[in-house]
Amino acid sequence: MTTPSDHFILTFSCPNKPGIVAGVSTFLFEKGCNILEAQQFDDTETNRFFMRVVFNVVASEASLSEIREGFTAVAEGFALNWTLRPKAEKRRVLLLASKFDHCLADLLYRWRIGEIPMDITGIISNHPRETYAHLDFDGIPFHHLPVTKATKLEQETKIWEIFQSSGSELAVLARYMQVLSDGLTAKLSGKCINIHHSFLPGFKGAKPYHQAHARGVKLMGATSHYVTSDLDEGPIIEQDVERISHQDSPEDLVRKGRDIERRVLARAISWHLQDRVLLNGSRTVVFRD
Amino acid sequence: MTTPSDHFILTFSCPNKPGIVAGVSTFLFEKGCNILEAQQFDDTETNRFFMRVVFNVVASEASLSEIREGFTAVAEGFALNWTLRPKAEKRRVLLLASKFDHCLADLLYRWRIGEIPMDITGIISNHPRETYAHLDFDGIPFHHLPVTKATKLEQETKIWEIFQSSGSELAVLARYMQVLSDGLTAKLSGKCINIHHSFLPGFKGAKPYHQAHARGVKLMGATSHYVTSDLDEGPIIEQDVERISHQDSPEDLVRKGRDIERRVLARAISWHLQDRVLLNGSRTVVFRD
Amino acid sequence: MTTPSDHFILTFSCPNKPGIVAGVSTFLFEKGCNILEAQQFDDTETNRFFMRVVFNVVASEASLSEIREGFTAVAEGFALNWTLRPKAEKRRVLLLASKFDHCLADLLYRWRIGEIPMDITGIISNHPRETYAHLDFDGIPFHHLPVTKATKLEQETKIWEIFQSSGSELAVLARYMQVLSDGLTAKLSGKCINIHHSFLPGFKGAKPYHQAHARGVKLMGATSHYVTSDLDEGPIIEQDVERISHQDSPEDLVRKGRDIERRVLARAISWHLQDRVLLNGSRTVVFRD
Amino acid sequence: MTTPSDHFILTFSCPNKPGIVAGVSTFLFEKGCNILEAQQFDDTETNRFFMRVVFNVVASEASLSEIREGFTAVAEGFALNWTLRPKAEKRRVLLLASKFDHCLADLLYRWRIGEIPMDITGIISNHPRETYAHLDFDGIPFHHLPVTKATKLEQETKIWEIFQSSGSELAVLARYMQVLSDGLTAKLSGKCINIHHSFLPGFKGAKPYHQAHARGVKLMGATSHYVTSDLDEGPIIEQDVERISHQDSPEDLVRKGRDIERRVLARAISWHLQDRVLLNGSRTVVFRD
Repeated sequence: MTTPSDHFILTFSCPNKPGIVAGVSTFLFEKGCNILEAQQFDDTETNRFFMRVVFNVVASEASLSEIREGFTAVAEGFALNWTLRPKAEKRRVLLLASKFDHCLADLLYRWRIGEIPMDITGIISNHPRETYAHLDFDGIPFHHLPVTKATKLEQETKIWEIFQSSGSELAVLARYMQVLSDGLTAKLSGKCINIHHSFLPGFKGAKPYHQAHARGVKLMGATSHYVTSDLDEGPIIEQDVERISHQDSPEDLVRKGRDIERRVLARAISWHLQDRVLLNGSRTVVFRD
Repeated sequence: MTTPSDHFILTFSCPNKPGIVAGVSTFLFEKGCNILEAQQFDDTETNRFFMRVVFNVVASEASLSEIREGFTAVAEGFALNWTLRPKAEKRRVLLLASKFDHCLADLLYRWRIGEIPMDITGIISNHPRETYAHLDFDGIPFHHLPVTKATKLEQETKIWEIFQSSGSELAVLARYMQVLSDGLTAKLSGKCINIHHSFLPGFKGAKPYHQAHARGVKLMGATSHYVTSDLDEGPIIEQDVERISHQDSPEDLVRKGRDIERRVLARAISWHLQDRVLLNGSRTVVFRD
Repeated sequence: MTTPSDHFILTFSCPNKPGIVAGVSTFLFEKGCNILEAQQFDDTETNRFFMRVVFNVVASEASLSEIREGFTAVAEGFALNWTLRPKAEKRRVLLLASKFDHCLADLLYRWRIGEIPMDITGIISNHPRETYAHLDFDGIPFHHLPVTKATKLEQETKIWEIFQSSGSELAVLARYMQVLSDGLTAKLSGKCINIHHSFLPGFKGAKPYHQAHARGVKLMGATSHYVTSDLDEGPIIEQDVERISHQDSPEDLVRKGRDIERRVLARAISWHLQDRVLLNGSRTVVFRD
Repeated sequence: MTTPSDHFILTFSCPNKPGIVAGVSTFLFEKGCNILEAQQFDDTETNRFFMRVVFNVVASEASLSEIREGFTAVAEGFALNWTLRPKAEKRRVLLLASKFDHCLADLLYRWRIGEIPMDITGIISNHPRETYAHLDFDGIPFHHLPVTKATKLEQETKIWEIFQSSGSELAVLARYMQVLSDGLTAKLSGKCINIHHSFLPGFKGAKPYHQAHARGVKLMGATSHYVTSDLDEGPIIEQDVERISHQDSPEDLVRKGRDIERRVLARAISWHLQDRVLLNGSRTVVFRD
């Protein structure tokens, strides 16, 4: 399923007031565009309006730059915080992993068959390449960046350099088991997605499956969220759960959790890359597929 | 939560073409209306477009009739099949039940606390009033209409008379265990919702829980759908399931099914009454809450 | 579905060692009993063994007291902590509610149709009888026990007196919105089930749906647990969740939560009354149906 | 997690009568064995009893052959249909796949990390090795067996030869898109597991996702079952579902279905290999983990 090059995704948020939809849709119509998908959300608590529009150009020869230029006036009129990009354009994504590679293997598979539309710019791990001996990286640059307390600053500096030099737009912590420093977190604000292996806000921090077992919960879960300096407190993108029982040891939870983690992370990344996730303070608006 | 009287729900479907959203939203803006919710769906298979808009009047004194009149021109331009009504206006609903009253009791409860916004015009049963001795009908007219093969025509004629004379807009088969004739089905087309106690299309017809047990399925379900002359083949509005096991006898399925049935039926009715369900041939577009 | 009077439920837990199942099953066989259901759990962390057996008497005239007497020797040999009772014997249950009556109404319905096998000994509320004007209490004694900070001690003393004098074996907090004191909690240890309207351990305490909304979680839940002096920290019996989205206001969560709460509480009570729930420290072993 | 070599799994089914559990557990106790896990099911419809016991040898030097020999007498006394094997012994499994490799890739991953305890004896496909260029088969023999109507008999003969000569005990149709003939099906009875991409019994046969889309169901699913000569009618081992909506095209269902298929198939295989699945006529008893 290739996306035609004349398909675009527009997203925006703004203070709510009458006329936004009319203004935006009339502009698109006058530019010869046809709306294919549109989702909106009016947050009555914050009086903020959110919208995602997928459109194609059907009745004109308008280029992206012409549409963008023309839209600037509309956007200013409504004080829009907006993005506009070709749907077919793949985002550049940097993956970070540690010893457990179930999320990494899963993302590579989904990328290979075209399910997640992205260009993978690199794979960073604090473990060496042989940890993933059976995974075909298919030419993706691999960076072994071991880390200790003493070398954390240097290691994170390298991560940031790789992120920048590779033109990455998103960093994915695919069970990367190192807590990022506030400094790196700040640089990656809104551009870094983590998978935490608990149903947040329950069981933050280390060994959440052991915490869940100790508490005796009857469902276990995983949470994908944007990384912020406040550990496991970032805006949640997606969560899912499975039923467990008293029979499940912590090891059983680890095993069952792998399935939940990989599907929750994959959904969160897919939605982010399709501009379906808009930040709304410490929460997210997710226009699900 | 009372809905202000200036809130309206507009729904429509039409052949898809550019400019529909612009046309509708510009009309609303010019009439002084503010869009509060909007959901749309572009069926690329049938090239049909579906939309639901909730709006209120903020910058004018426009009445419903003025808006309706003005909108007629827009609607004609796009060949819209449309409805427009005050959100606060309660629909009139006729309930039909048989011996098992779990759906009936549940709907009465949800109605009483205001969860499902409807006026109940009557309760029809083929069983006598004492079957529901513990249910408080709260002044709702009750009609005992026993039925045999020989009297089915007369009985259905009475149902139709009650539906019409009470000004009912929707009939709900809340585990009413009589198959409606083609004649009555035709009159109630799009205005009659049933709950079938299986995950359709599996286990149509009689005793679906026994069928499910015999087949050894690992999940059981219920389906709410519009009634058509083709038994259990009408457009599906909502479905849900629960996990079961080899331990569950047919009686266990009956018990566990009650919970699924009542929540599936309640959702379907709520969505229908909020104009969230639009027919799309033999399927439905459901703009979920 | 009446249960024959010769069906019995045996439960026990004990330090694990070889021969327990052989000892118990051989005893039952020799007494002329047939095992109908058996579930067991060997907690390798605590080295404790849990078992539930349902049996009937098929090849003898053994009475419950004879079986009980004979079993005492077996029980002593393995240091069993055990219960044995006729399956058909209904437990006596005291319900407590506050203004929101969805759990109360639901439990009364399930009791009436025989789904939950119990005798309801009374209904206590801090709100007057007219709060439940549309509920048919069917002769169950109602106790209006208003409470203020100043009168809490006296009110709880009355609750305890009613619990005792009515021969109640279980107290159910069916959305009873008063925190029980440590004193009353201690007396009701293992005999008091609460429904908390969040997926614990997330969102303890007051207004959990508002907390869930503020945190932006993507699934909401409810938890039924034994009440302990540590608020919302008691052993969890059952939990369930539903998917929500950014569109859901706190009021929507309240509405959607009612369905989750009532089914989670009903399951927990049913399982407790069928001796399916065994305490294992701060957790539970639940032999689900 | 290596399993000690003195752990054994015993399963059996037999006509129900008093004393079975006593007989079996007493035998094990007298042989110096300790029961670690036990699950049982009494099918009151067919009067057949099913049991699975995991035990280890703690108080003797009994070997498997000694236990097996001794148990034969017990088994004859109760007319048991039984199996007994070391828990640590890996079963030999032959995988069959076609073009879509999501189930194959997933099973290889789970095998590699030790989640599914099996020895893979070979991979058969009607597509050439390069179809799976990015999958590391790690020395597993690959057999390219193209098939046409005219060559089906020969191709299936080769499959059967490979199954036999490799000592395979289970064949897994991991989205192998050829219908097996009755002849091969008969030989593989109870030893061949398929994944069908619908929630059976809905949407049997070809293109189930397109069928599901056309019917407008609100949940989609997948089913893993033993293969019988009656297409998609074999005993069901496991099923699961996900919610979908009117927005989902058949292609979306294909995409979303991959996640369901692979987890349903993996569970079914795991349970089969752990002797958790016992046939009960056209249904299964599944002692879930």
